[in-house]
Amino acid sequence: MTGADAPYDVHEIPDFTLECGVTLRPARVAYQTYGTLNADRTNAIVYPTWYSGRHWDNEWLIGEGRALDPERWFIIVPNMLGNGLSSSPSNTAPPSDRARFPRISVRDNVASQHRLVTEVFGIETLPLVLGWSMGAGQSYQWAVSHPEMVQRVLPFCGSPRTAPHNRVFLDSVRAALTADQVFAGGWYEPDRWPVAGLRAAARVYAGWGFSQAFYWNEAWRELGHTSLEDFIVDFWEGFFLDDRDPNNLLTMLDTWWNGDVGRTPGFGSTEEALASIRARAIVMPAEKDLYFPPEDEAWAVSHMKNAELRVIPGVWGHFAGGGKNPVDTDFIDTAVAELLAAPSGI
Amino acid sequence: MTGADAPYDVHEIPDFTLECGVTLRPARVAYQTYGTLNADRTNAIVYPTWYSGRHWDNEWLIGEGRALDPERWFIIVPNMLGNGLSSSPSNTAPPSDRARFPRISVRDNVASQHRLVTEVFGIETLPLVLGWSMGAGQSYQWAVSHPEMVQRVLPFCGSPRTAPHNRVFLDSVRAALTADQVFAGGWYEPDRWPVAGLRAAARVYAGWGFSQAFYWNEAWRELGHTSLEDFIVDFWEGFFLDDRDPNNLLTMLDTWWNGDVGRTPGFGSTEEALASIRARAIVMPAEKDLYFPPEDEAWAVSHMKNAELRVIPGVWGHFAGGGKNPVDTDFIDTAVAELLAAPSGI
Repeated sequence: MTGADAPYDVHEIPDFTLECGVTLRPARVAYQTYGTLNADRTNAIVYPTWYSGRHWDNEWLIGEGRALDPERWFIIVPNMLGNGLSSSPSNTAPPSDRARFPRISVRDNVASQHRLVTEVFGIETLPLVLGWSMGAGQSYQWAVSHPEMVQRVLPFCGSPRTAPHNRVFLDSVRAALTADQVFAGGWYEPDRWPVAGLRAAARVYAGWGFSQAFYWNEAWRELGHTSLEDFIVDFWEGFFLDDRDPNNLLTMLDTWWNGDVGRTPGFGSTEEALASIRARAIVMPAEKDLYFPPEDEAWAVSHMKNAELRVIPGVWGHFAGGGKNPVDTDFIDTAVAELLAAPSGI
Repeated sequence: MTGADAPYDVHEIPDFTLECGVTLRPARVAYQTYGTLNADRTNAIVYPTWYSGRHWDNEWLIGEGRALDPERWFIIVPNMLGNGLSSSPSNTAPPSDRARFPRISVRDNVASQHRLVTEVFGIETLPLVLGWSMGAGQSYQWAVSHPEMVQRVLPFCGSPRTAPHNRVFLDSVRAALTADQVFAGGWYEPDRWPVAGLRAAARVYAGWGFSQAFYWNEAWRELGHTSLEDFIVDFWEGFFLDDRDPNNLLTMLDTWWNGDVGRTPGFGSTEEALASIRARAIVMPAEKDLYFPPEDEAWAVSHMKNAELRVIPGVWGHFAGGGKNPVDTDFIDTAVAELLAAPSGI
């Protein structure tokens, strides 16, 4: 069984100290698995979630006949801290709840996932870590933090370090959401959300999520929308109103904003951290991604030992990696298959 | 004398009926002039303002040794309706004040400017109309509405029709500004502006106004800023707090959103209107402009009879046309000089 209604598991880490110094007592990592772990525990793939995504939002790339075939692989999709299923402002008991929920780093996420993978499953090697967007950022971090474990990595539409312009974009989402006085510094009533702010954040996101050419071509018609406004309201505002707790959104936004593999202990720079990656990599930015532009990933690949840059062509921009259209999905699926068939980087 | 403190003139049009059907009683067009109109009134250039710009914000392209040399040309800079100097929500008496100020079209602006140019100065021919951004949109409209008058046109970083993605961007600015409850549907107290909304709108704009590469390169250092946050607060938030009345901003935003020369009476489409332009044109998008991308202007030029596409190279994005850096300014100035030296299109 798959989808939002399928049962899923939670790994509880009793005392989980975050990089910021706060301890979650406990941290909970919600996760879903697809397929069966083999006897020698060598067929596990980690596929982290993206900004506000839940494990079921990754399922479009998993399935029979896909590269991520549960008949062959054991695919673990851990939910990011802050996404509302794993420990988050919305589901943590006082005193560390809501606006007081601590800052979460990409490394905190990877550390929590490493505990899950090793403590629950006894896994020591990962044929592949992959992910979209913030999931790509976590994939890079896995390859840097656990070079002995990660054989291959396939980050799509994401980066090892959040670029300055990307931060400007994120700050604008935050500013739009919090301009609504109902937000009240994060102390809004649980049953009264800052809806105007959420809708404004959705509209900001709408301009960035898809390319100029996507809108020029009215490619939203492929998603069943009937007008530009219908797409903005139904897809984008609907997206942000679909159980997206504002404090959760800001926790994940902060995680994203501060992402940088170069701050991993032991490294002096992003370049040095990238150079340390042993995993074989296919790095897949989208041609017209407006906040993870391909130039940035060309730069990242230039500092990696064993990486290929493979740009996803077309007009879908960031959402090329969102599983929303079959052409881009097949393009990514093909790369996943090729990478899994190639020799391990370790 | 130039600058914000220089005296300027206002042309009053007693009863000015707008496209939306409302009549401004009167409409006021504030304007500044540079140079002297010659005896046969053949040396006048119209250079309209941009979104929230005032006439003095155009002066960087005017001056001795520049193509727009006041020793030779008589340069008229009319302020857009809604910009706070010409008739605007902020300076119109009740009942058509503030949130009740009527909708203004690009054609209304050009009509008001045409009245100014003909009634005050008796001008019948214009060697050049040019402008940045919304000023480019007005330039296109001048060439469509008054083909017998406009000899040459040089729109930079702007378009004849506001593209769908551009509208998504504009809607996000509006949503951020109005998410602040202090906005109160436009009925905020004149001495209590929705500052959180204005700052949020500024941050949204920050991501779009300059390119990803501009931020990657930290090119804001060329403007004297000392950090990314210093640039965002000092340049962008400062920009939006500098006497930018929120209702004025939304009036101009609506003008922009609805811009389309194809809706000029007598034309069936944007393409048809573009094909009607007789003026010789150099159309100058900026290479990395995120809301007026060069592809859109290549499309426009493909429908014009007498137009050259000349892309402004570099990382400054939309602000390549803002007069903020000498390289781009010289590039534009060179094109203006070439165009003025070329034969008239009429």
